Amino acid sequence: MRHFPSDSAESYLIGVVDVARWEQFQLGDTLPFQAMWYTVPPASSSPQDCHPEVELSVVISGTASVEASGEFTDVAPGSCFLLGSEEAHVIHNRSADQPLFIFTTYWMPRTGDGPAELATASAAGSGAGEEGPS
Amino acid sequence: MRHFPSDSAESYLIGVVDVARWEQFQLGDTLPFQAMWYTVPPASSSPQDCHPEVELSVVISGTASVEASGEFTDVAPGSCFLLGSEEAHVIHNRSADQPLFIFTTYWMPRTGDGPAELATASAAGSGAGEEGPS
Repeated sequence: MRHFPSDSAESYLIGVVDVARWEQFQLGDTLPFQAMWYTVPPASSSPQDCHPEVELSVVISGTASVEASGEFTDVAPGSCFLLGSEEAHVIHNRSADQPLFIFTTYWMPRTGDGPAELATASAAGSGAGEEGPS
Repeated sequence: MRHFPSDSAESYLIGVVDVARWEQFQLGDTLPFQAMWYTVPPASSSPQDCHPEVELSVVISGTASVEASGEFTDVAPGSCFLLGSEEAHVIHNRSADQPLFIFTTYWMPRTGDGPAELATASAAGSGAGEEGPS
């Protein structure tokens, strides 16, 4: 078992956003994705970002107001949001006093995983009913 | 963008653990892993689990006491733990009153990703310095 404490990770600023990338843990290709933590300070927003990687994020604390594809969506702690390949996004923290803390995974899409494809993803290939960790 | 609220996901019990698997979202092979949320009630523990999938978990709320490979490790909110293929584990919640809530990803290892290999994972293949989402 390996432990990755979020409070001791090395981080740096991108705009106002404090980013701690997992490359520092030198996991090689153990994970089938890359990962990072990031913090958006109170009453601020991330720079707009757009990249080929698909991105799945889980909110740890605070509430994310996710701006993507012309819509704003509030994402509460414990809930997740999935951004498609090349889907531009800005992450807003509307709180006046609470930081927004997020854990994110990202990877290059294997097929068409753009915003439109995500919205209509079908059950094809779904592992429903399969055994797995519990 | 797709939103996955944790509080409306369908779940079921494995022992005392409430599990909400992501197969219900029918994402097909959009994600390069499977995922689930799970909740360990106060003052209780998960059944022992052991499976071929490698498993990366992030604690959302509460503190996990992770028992694996003969050691116990406390994992705080926002921090992560990585379990190797076939590494038996029990997740304890020592709190008398707070549920332990965790988001987990898991996938079949591509090479030797057992407990020993994880402990010695080298920088080979590390993407340090690569561009990516921010």
